[in-house]
Amino acid sequence: AKAYARWASSGGKIVAPPMVYISGEEMTRYAMQLVMDNWIEPHVDTSTWEYYDLSCKARDDTEDKVLADAVDAGKRIKAIFKEPTITPTAEQVESLGLRKAWGSPNGAMRRGWNGITISRDTIHIEGVELGYKRPVLFERHAVGGEYGAGWKATGSGKLVTAFYPSEGGPEATLMRNDFTIVDQRDLKDAENVAVVYHNPLDNVDDLAHHFFKRCLAEKVVPYVVTKKTVFKWQESFWAIMKRTFDTHYKAAYAEAGLLDKCGGELQHLISDAATMQIIRWTDGGFGMAAHNYDGDMLTDEVAQVHRSPGFITSNLIGKSDSGELIKEFEASHGTVSDLWHQHLAGVETSFNPLGMLEAIIGAMDHAAALAGPEKEAEMTKFTEALRSAVHTSFRIGEGTRDMVGPEGLSTEQFVATVRARLGRYLEGDFVEPKEAEVCTIKSSTDVTRDPSLPEVDHSAVQEMFNQYDLDGNGTIDVEEFEQMLDKLGVAPLREEKKTYHEHEAGQV
Amino acid sequence: AKAYARWASSGGKIVAPPMVYISGEEMTRYAMQLVMDNWIEPHVDTSTWEYYDLSCKARDDTEDKVLADAVDAGKRIKAIFKEPTITPTAEQVESLGLRKAWGSPNGAMRRGWNGITISRDTIHIEGVELGYKRPVLFERHAVGGEYGAGWKATGSGKLVTAFYPSEGGPEATLMRNDFTIVDQRDLKDAENVAVVYHNPLDNVDDLAHHFFKRCLAEKVVPYVVTKKTVFKWQESFWAIMKRTFDTHYKAAYAEAGLLDKCGGELQHLISDAATMQIIRWTDGGFGMAAHNYDGDMLTDEVAQVHRSPGFITSNLIGKSDSGELIKEFEASHGTVSDLWHQHLAGVETSFNPLGMLEAIIGAMDHAAALAGPEKEAEMTKFTEALRSAVHTSFRIGEGTRDMVGPEGLSTEQFVATVRARLGRYLEGDFVEPKEAEVCTIKSSTDVTRDPSLPEVDHSAVQEMFNQYDLDGNGTIDVEEFEQMLDKLGVAPLREEKKTYHEHEAGQV
Repeated sequence: AKAYARWASSGGKIVAPPMVYISGEEMTRYAMQLVMDNWIEPHVDTSTWEYYDLSCKARDDTEDKVLADAVDAGKRIKAIFKEPTITPTAEQVESLGLRKAWGSPNGAMRRGWNGITISRDTIHIEGVELGYKRPVLFERHAVGGEYGAGWKATGSGKLVTAFYPSEGGPEATLMRNDFTIVDQRDLKDAENVAVVYHNPLDNVDDLAHHFFKRCLAEKVVPYVVTKKTVFKWQESFWAIMKRTFDTHYKAAYAEAGLLDKCGGELQHLISDAATMQIIRWTDGGFGMAAHNYDGDMLTDEVAQVHRSPGFITSNLIGKSDSGELIKEFEASHGTVSDLWHQHLAGVETSFNPLGMLEAIIGAMDHAAALAGPEKEAEMTKFTEALRSAVHTSFRIGEGTRDMVGPEGLSTEQFVATVRARLGRYLEGDFVEPKEAEVCTIKSSTDVTRDPSLPEVDHSAVQEMFNQYDLDGNGTIDVEEFEQMLDKLGVAPLREEKKTYHEHEAGQV
Repeated sequence: AKAYARWASSGGKIVAPPMVYISGEEMTRYAMQLVMDNWIEPHVDTSTWEYYDLSCKARDDTEDKVLADAVDAGKRIKAIFKEPTITPTAEQVESLGLRKAWGSPNGAMRRGWNGITISRDTIHIEGVELGYKRPVLFERHAVGGEYGAGWKATGSGKLVTAFYPSEGGPEATLMRNDFTIVDQRDLKDAENVAVVYHNPLDNVDDLAHHFFKRCLAEKVVPYVVTKKTVFKWQESFWAIMKRTFDTHYKAAYAEAGLLDKCGGELQHLISDAATMQIIRWTDGGFGMAAHNYDGDMLTDEVAQVHRSPGFITSNLIGKSDSGELIKEFEASHGTVSDLWHQHLAGVETSFNPLGMLEAIIGAMDHAAALAGPEKEAEMTKFTEALRSAVHTSFRIGEGTRDMVGPEGLSTEQFVATVRARLGRYLEGDFVEPKEAEVCTIKSSTDVTRDPSLPEVDHSAVQEMFNQYDLDGNGTIDVEEFEQMLDKLGVAPLREEKKTYHEHEAGQV
């Protein structure tokens, strides 16, 4: 409290260090403009930020030079915030009058920034329960796997893959003799697709450091997830992770008690078993690091268990040529077209900007950290106040409708409420007249459904209720409740037996 | 009722048509022997069955000839039941005194029987709720993907993959000129793994027929699951599925009303969106067909939502050279070592044989179907009585402890109970004195936990209960219940809005 007050009393705005701001379009563009105008600009001088517009129109107008410029800027400045963007469909190319279907910008960014990992973590609001109770941290290797595969449809025949050491020789003729055969196979079917990819491994060590530092800071138990029992080449990923862990982190983890339930060693989890544990381990408190495609699948599963992709971060961690980390922060969701069309039609919306808030806070904090400890301390005072103003608003029932139900605020009302609360916080006024009154109930139960999500079927609920109301007295007591939780597969379990399925699922 | 009685009155045993019985070891071997001795042999003459012992010891003693023989027999007979087997670890090679670590028999069986699909469906017990309310059917393409990949660890250099039409030319020299380059790429990292695989597509049409026939029979909505939006080569799988659907099944599905909520067309679902829908669609009533690895991941996720792999089938569907289907039926679980060691130590066990029961019934029914409609009718009368005797036992509380709690029966008691009940059924006596009394409660609520699963944390349950008991009166009423379900993400939803996340998740 004092800290905020002291800062606020300095009078002017914080001068933000350089940062790249990549804007997109539709509802998320609109909401972020409100956030900038009302939450950030009144308190922060953002004149050093560089802005790049990745709307379809701007990419089309510049023949995608704007993307290349944004990537260059990110390389230089190393702290990037990105709004959701649209990768136009054929129909959108038509309706927006574009020259061509500009592809997803993700590839250019991952390449340009030497992407190491996409970190996707659960977002938690103090005093409000979403899906997992404690944080779930995820690293998805940002390179390798089928995303960069080459392929061809073929008839029957022979497929030969050869590796040539880099130096010398014409590439296309295959006439050199210094090759090693990677694979040769007969394709017997009349119709096949042949697929080739590689996993570059040089940055797995960087991924490991990033992952193990984060898990240690959050006090969660790290798992490395692969299918190496069958896909033998994935052994390398595990081996590098384990080597880095054992060399640099094992002692600190042991000290923190994070290996107590794992026999003192870093744990491996088979990918198909991970699909099961993600559903079972609803207490959270774990991290997973996985290959690219497994990470894609598993982080979406985590998002579903944690209520929706709206409560998951999506941060690309790369590395500059000089070895410094480049960090780009995004929300996990898209441009929320449906709300945008409602907004355009004059219908009131209630958009929850939490995912984007976490992203811009992450980028601002990282930019400040790059500027040095003094700037970091100054900036985090502001970003903590901002986060706290948003979380408190949710907690005391002044949130958007996905969180507090139909009585929740509109997009604009929510922005205004947080603006006022943040203003008070920065003046050192933290008194919440409503909090004492409603906090206990709202915090854990009044978190109702995002109106854009499917509606609950009330009669089916009643039917389900009757099933669990064993004695038919119209209420469920705690014994009935436990049986129900267990049956629904959501019962909290004792810690020590939690790894059961790991062994079981490995047999398949 | 009359049907069973009529059959029973014929006096002798049913003569089972030829079938291949592959036995394994540990708890599942022991339990299946009990099942054979008590449920099947008393009523069925199995003298035409061929038995193959795939225990580690037998494979070692025969230098795996027994596996080759089993595969040959399966090819000939086309109806196979297989118990869970052990793929020995290095430690087991040592402790069992094996010559070598015999690999999983799955590959040999998939190749030998021209595996098309692994069908993994939810098992349902009439009157007892597990995870999904209605059936979930899954086809996992039995070939292709990374399971058959070739790979090599490489340094930096160039990777070239070329395709040669099948005829003529030496294979290894790469000196022929009639190649097509499938892929060439620079490997820039110092450490890489290069991976090559192919997806043979000739049997996707067979998979499609099998899948669409089954979904139509069960009246569930079929989805084809791929990552084709990014992995463009997966378009072929979808295209073949859709062509077969449109040509042969669309009209019948439309007639059955199964396309009403899909705009009248077969639906595609992106694989990462599927990880979310599997958690959301707990009403069941859907089918998914996927590539090999996606199917591996997603069916394990389905198993977790449906309580455990004990309630999921695992059937390999192949094809003989003459074009007839070969069907092999398995349980999804392993040999249940922990119960086996308890049994060996003289501790009473309570093993639920439901997964293996479904498998042997599937194999017996298929063998009978191959023998003709008369034999099929005769056999299904018996297998229906058997299934019904098992299901009723569970329903009225005479089940194993995973289903009815600590008061449940031991492995041997359960076998004896079903044996007696089956005997009565086959005599035409279906009276269950206990059913009227206890069925309503047991059916939906007294399904408690497999004792081999992690224990519920009772104090955490109480804490959770308190959160949902909004008014703190010690019970949960129906309104509190609905909010809770919604928050847990398990609330039943209105049908029409269920496909929301399909669009949303596709943006990532």
